[in-house]
Amino acid sequence: MSKLLILGSIAFDQIETPFGKTDVIMGGSANYIALAASQFEVPQAVLSIVGSDYPKSYLNLLSQRGIRTEGIEVVEGGKTLFWSGKYHNDMNQRDTLDTQLNVITNFNPVVPEDFRDAEVLLLGNLHPNLQMDVLQQMSSRPKLVVMDTMNYWMNHTWELLQEMIAKVDVLTINDEEARQLTGEYSLVKAAQRIIGMGVKYVVIKKGEHGALLFHKDKVFYAPALPLAEVFDPTGAGDAFAGGMVGYLAKTADYSFENLKNAIVHGSNIASFCIEKFGAERLLNLNKEELYRRLQQFKDLTQFDIQLK
Amino acid sequence: MSKLLILGSIAFDQIETPFGKTDVIMGGSANYIALAASQFEVPQAVLSIVGSDYPKSYLNLLSQRGIRTEGIEVVEGGKTLFWSGKYHNDMNQRDTLDTQLNVITNFNPVVPEDFRDAEVLLLGNLHPNLQMDVLQQMSSRPKLVVMDTMNYWMNHTWELLQEMIAKVDVLTINDEEARQLTGEYSLVKAAQRIIGMGVKYVVIKKGEHGALLFHKDKVFYAPALPLAEVFDPTGAGDAFAGGMVGYLAKTADYSFENLKNAIVHGSNIASFCIEKFGAERLLNLNKEELYRRLQQFKDLTQFDIQLK
Repeated sequence: MSKLLILGSIAFDQIETPFGKTDVIMGGSANYIALAASQFEVPQAVLSIVGSDYPKSYLNLLSQRGIRTEGIEVVEGGKTLFWSGKYHNDMNQRDTLDTQLNVITNFNPVVPEDFRDAEVLLLGNLHPNLQMDVLQQMSSRPKLVVMDTMNYWMNHTWELLQEMIAKVDVLTINDEEARQLTGEYSLVKAAQRIIGMGVKYVVIKKGEHGALLFHKDKVFYAPALPLAEVFDPTGAGDAFAGGMVGYLAKTADYSFENLKNAIVHGSNIASFCIEKFGAERLLNLNKEELYRRLQQFKDLTQFDIQLK
Repeated sequence: MSKLLILGSIAFDQIETPFGKTDVIMGGSANYIALAASQFEVPQAVLSIVGSDYPKSYLNLLSQRGIRTEGIEVVEGGKTLFWSGKYHNDMNQRDTLDTQLNVITNFNPVVPEDFRDAEVLLLGNLHPNLQMDVLQQMSSRPKLVVMDTMNYWMNHTWELLQEMIAKVDVLTINDEEARQLTGEYSLVKAAQRIIGMGVKYVVIKKGEHGALLFHKDKVFYAPALPLAEVFDPTGAGDAFAGGMVGYLAKTADYSFENLKNAIVHGSNIASFCIEKFGAERLLNLNKEELYRRLQQFKDLTQFDIQLK
């Protein structure tokens, strides 16, 4: 069992899908990651920032699950990051309708004293400067540093991003972003290029088409579970990452073999996330459901061909 | 070991990809299906039609592999079906530049006497009338009837197509076509609707995103192998179907468990097909290569999570 430290955003989200429209609800990568990871009951802390408009009850939803929240700065009189978006029939695509950065533009994360030795560090999709800052606050180099990023940082902070990527063990990135980062269309070649940047494991997220894990010349694939209804994909990628690091922190085994299991767990938790709006399903999820659906992942993928 | 009978097209193809452009080469679904199935050394015959412009040497490429060709009608003075197409960077999409149906518009397939009792019948993507005609020529109902179709027949022969679908065991169809056929965006729901039309197994082909097998309330997924180079996707779907029926004919086991193995074999052979232009790679493929790559499919998909 390892300690897990998560850097990410906390936001108000307003989401529209073909199935309906939400009020302003709790969102942001840190919420999804932490709630997913909490299924593995590891000691974890979140680094983030909110305004005083963010309900204390939302923070309590984390602390009730054993997630330490004193690393979440509350800015008196400040407004919380706001995002609204709209999905169409093809849930792999979305339009951002509005983004208000608000307090997150002045975020200076401070790692709680007793999490400076966390073995697993997840640097969520934020400015590479913030990711670097948190890494430097660690008392010793964590056993596993996982970093998520997106095209925005490639467009605006290319040099910094490269520098940051060279310092991490696992880069999680979606397929289009992997192509943009490397100039390679083939995901196999893109992953090889990213490994060449100094990363040990590359996880390429393909939304409803699952996720690929690359390490040296090896590759493993975790499909997404085919579902009759995809209600709201918001947060699925973060829930995937949270399931992955939660499992890794619980097992404290950072081998390729165990990373395989970790991305299956990630896919499994993500498959629940998309069944309801926002983080609602993650807030109402138990281990029995998780393990029942893991059996479905086995049934979906395991075959028995005898090789001569 | 069962006999395998294949109805399909034989064509001249001209293909352009980002990697180059071919001369006029051998193509058509029947060639890809039969060459893929021939890896399993089952007794097989092809029903198709060509003009006298089609080289005898191309037909010999089939007969040398034990594929019976007397069901391929040669129309004296006739011209062979011609197709040309162009792929862009995203190899999942292609533009058809030209189609000349030629002799295939007057095709009256005649099943060779000793294949009227074939246990496995593959009805390739042609007019449903031709598919029905061949099925009716069988002396008894084959143990397994597999049918492939496409959006063209949905647009032009809807009623006939429905009638035909109700008579088969396995429908292979791509994702967009499954959506068109059923009006359901979710592939899970689409498959359920197709099963409701009277089909036992539905195989939904998703190109580089693999293939899904549905049966009752069960689902299995065979990924495509992630490749550094996709040279030419032409025929990959047919090679997939050929590998699938070849394996099923060899094992004469039409259970869901064995269908799972069959679509892995199909994905495996398809992964070779796309490495060279047209059918070139299928013509130079041996069992050692196939089994070596099957091990890669195992490594890609098999994991070992203990369920509590």
